[in-house]
Amino acid sequence: MSISVIGTYHSKFGALEDTIYDLILNAGRGAMKDSGLEADAIGAVFLGNFSAGQFVNQEHLGAMVVDIDPGLRFKPSTRLENACASGSAAIEMASYALEAGEIDYALVIGAEKMTSLDTRGVTHALATASYWPDEGANGMTFPGLFAEFAKGYMKHYDYSLEMMRNTFAQISAKNHTNAVENPLAHMPMSITAEKILGKEDRKNPIIADPLRLFDCSLVSDGAAALVLTKTENALKIKDDVVEISAMGHTTDYLSLVSGKRADYELTAGKLAIQKAYAKAGITVDDLDFAEVHDCFTINELLAYEAMGIKEGGMGHLALEEGIVFRDGKLPVNLSGGLKAKGHPVGTTGVSMAVLATRQLLGKAVGIQKKDAETGLTFNVGGSSASCYASVYKRIK
Amino acid sequence: MSISVIGTYHSKFGALEDTIYDLILNAGRGAMKDSGLEADAIGAVFLGNFSAGQFVNQEHLGAMVVDIDPGLRFKPSTRLENACASGSAAIEMASYALEAGEIDYALVIGAEKMTSLDTRGVTHALATASYWPDEGANGMTFPGLFAEFAKGYMKHYDYSLEMMRNTFAQISAKNHTNAVENPLAHMPMSITAEKILGKEDRKNPIIADPLRLFDCSLVSDGAAALVLTKTENALKIKDDVVEISAMGHTTDYLSLVSGKRADYELTAGKLAIQKAYAKAGITVDDLDFAEVHDCFTINELLAYEAMGIKEGGMGHLALEEGIVFRDGKLPVNLSGGLKAKGHPVGTTGVSMAVLATRQLLGKAVGIQKKDAETGLTFNVGGSSASCYASVYKRIK
Repeated sequence: MSISVIGTYHSKFGALEDTIYDLILNAGRGAMKDSGLEADAIGAVFLGNFSAGQFVNQEHLGAMVVDIDPGLRFKPSTRLENACASGSAAIEMASYALEAGEIDYALVIGAEKMTSLDTRGVTHALATASYWPDEGANGMTFPGLFAEFAKGYMKHYDYSLEMMRNTFAQISAKNHTNAVENPLAHMPMSITAEKILGKEDRKNPIIADPLRLFDCSLVSDGAAALVLTKTENALKIKDDVVEISAMGHTTDYLSLVSGKRADYELTAGKLAIQKAYAKAGITVDDLDFAEVHDCFTINELLAYEAMGIKEGGMGHLALEEGIVFRDGKLPVNLSGGLKAKGHPVGTTGVSMAVLATRQLLGKAVGIQKKDAETGLTFNVGGSSASCYASVYKRIK
Repeated sequence: MSISVIGTYHSKFGALEDTIYDLILNAGRGAMKDSGLEADAIGAVFLGNFSAGQFVNQEHLGAMVVDIDPGLRFKPSTRLENACASGSAAIEMASYALEAGEIDYALVIGAEKMTSLDTRGVTHALATASYWPDEGANGMTFPGLFAEFAKGYMKHYDYSLEMMRNTFAQISAKNHTNAVENPLAHMPMSITAEKILGKEDRKNPIIADPLRLFDCSLVSDGAAALVLTKTENALKIKDDVVEISAMGHTTDYLSLVSGKRADYELTAGKLAIQKAYAKAGITVDDLDFAEVHDCFTINELLAYEAMGIKEGGMGHLALEEGIVFRDGKLPVNLSGGLKAKGHPVGTTGVSMAVLATRQLLGKAVGIQKKDAETGLTFNVGGSSASCYASVYKRIK
């Protein structure tokens, strides 16, 4: 894989006035403008979106891109969906088209409008990313599914609730605090783990035992976009180039409650990351930062282990040793992550790509890691059934 | 493009007892079995589906494919959606991945379960493939949108309602009658245009003036699947090879009522077909058959003109001169088409590919055209906003 990013766009995340159409049009125009390309140059468009059908009665979003610019009329455009990893699906398909030589430039957009529905509606829509007959239809929600991971992890490693809550609170506090410097974040908040742990129940209620409010990511609107081209072309036309050096994509059983896969580790996620490392020729020690899928704090903890920062059951040491904090060796979610930056689900994979690119260009959205050369993004769909790991490198 | 088909599967279309899961599992297993490959050999899976989220509360269908066979566990899998052209989107993305050399074999599945909802529910779900704010939200349905084409065509060419009804009835009768020999068809029926025209209003009611019941395709459940590989590989391992020689994919404004695009021709569709012809190095005269998107009879008429069988406004001559009938020079919809074979929307693009492949192998599903060497499929999404034209050739 030798695909590079030559244009980026990232909207504010939050409860926005923008419609899904506004989000898509602004994202497409923003990334093209940043790339310096005219629409005529774009070979095809790839749009990641989880469920505008349920959120705003709009499927077939691929064709919406013609309204971005008349120059896009008659170009191929496709909508990709893999739950909360829909944005990564769009990047992967764009990469295939570029590598195949079918197109020279791809416009990739991730967009989601979620706050159009009330909490009940959003919870239902998200639950359709689980295996509906055994999970959603039985009342299982996404907090509930990730609570299964939290309980499975506690049981497998024989950890106490107190120990888990302490770990989760550190992740939550880190991400909320990192987001303070991110002007596009949904919920920046300067807060400590102690303060989260000390909150009264009514201010940090249990959502799905043992997960509490401060363990859950946000329901957000937002969009992000990229212009991609082959690295050899990017090197010719750009002074600064960030490459997507490798992408690992794996799929596990859709159902978590079936028991067909582990509930104490991200089996498929670990494999996706290992594939990405191998393709990029790096190890975890080469990473300068990572943006990982903290839809719930437990998933960030499991990501530490999937990444190989610490072995299974030892993820908490990544926090205790300071590794994943902003001044640590491998800061995780400098942007604030899904927890605090926000999580417009179909956008998230593209958002991570934009954040990684800008971080490597020295133009971070928020906290800048000095001299960052290599970064990882880790984006999952459903209860971590669809997993994408990507290695980004500054190559010029 | 040099991609070939080495395995096919096609379910019965109709109101089936199968769930969306049954449909996917049977399709994936069926195509792999037909290819002679084990699941281990499959590099990635591409699943076309329009809206299982709305039809059966199930997004994130990509991850369902792991249940097809344990050998698919951890493989990349992605769900593609471009309304009623979702199946073609899956084929296109699989072709990209193969051409890019990322994988050696792709499993492509199209699946849709529609009869889970009542007519009102289906009508709503389908309307989300229109531009919702100006079309669906205003009560515009898909029969209504294609009625706009019918009215636009009548106005542009100054044709009478009687003349249009006569043309539509010929298309409907041809497709229903062709389907009699298709054992997988939803609604085979031996009928003449005269009989359709002579029906009492209550037996052929107006759905959206001037379109009547006999002008509308069916609400069906069904699945189809393909195994694809590069042609050079297919030639090595198979005795009989059908190639997807070219694919043209274009996108037009999502909204038809906006007036930004013509309502008397398939502007983007014509361009997609021209691209496919050019890439494959053929003209319409080289085609032995075509499977085209007759979601409504008017769209098949417009397809004749987009294909270049006749000039704009002269499509009816393709019927009057017998060209598109089973014994004509270029039979269209030998399978019965969407009108009579059925139209499980996300499946249709893959269904057309299976039908074209089997026709060229001399193993037609239904009517066999003798010595067919070259065929066209034409699949559209929404009110023909996403258009895919593909040329299939028997090359060994």
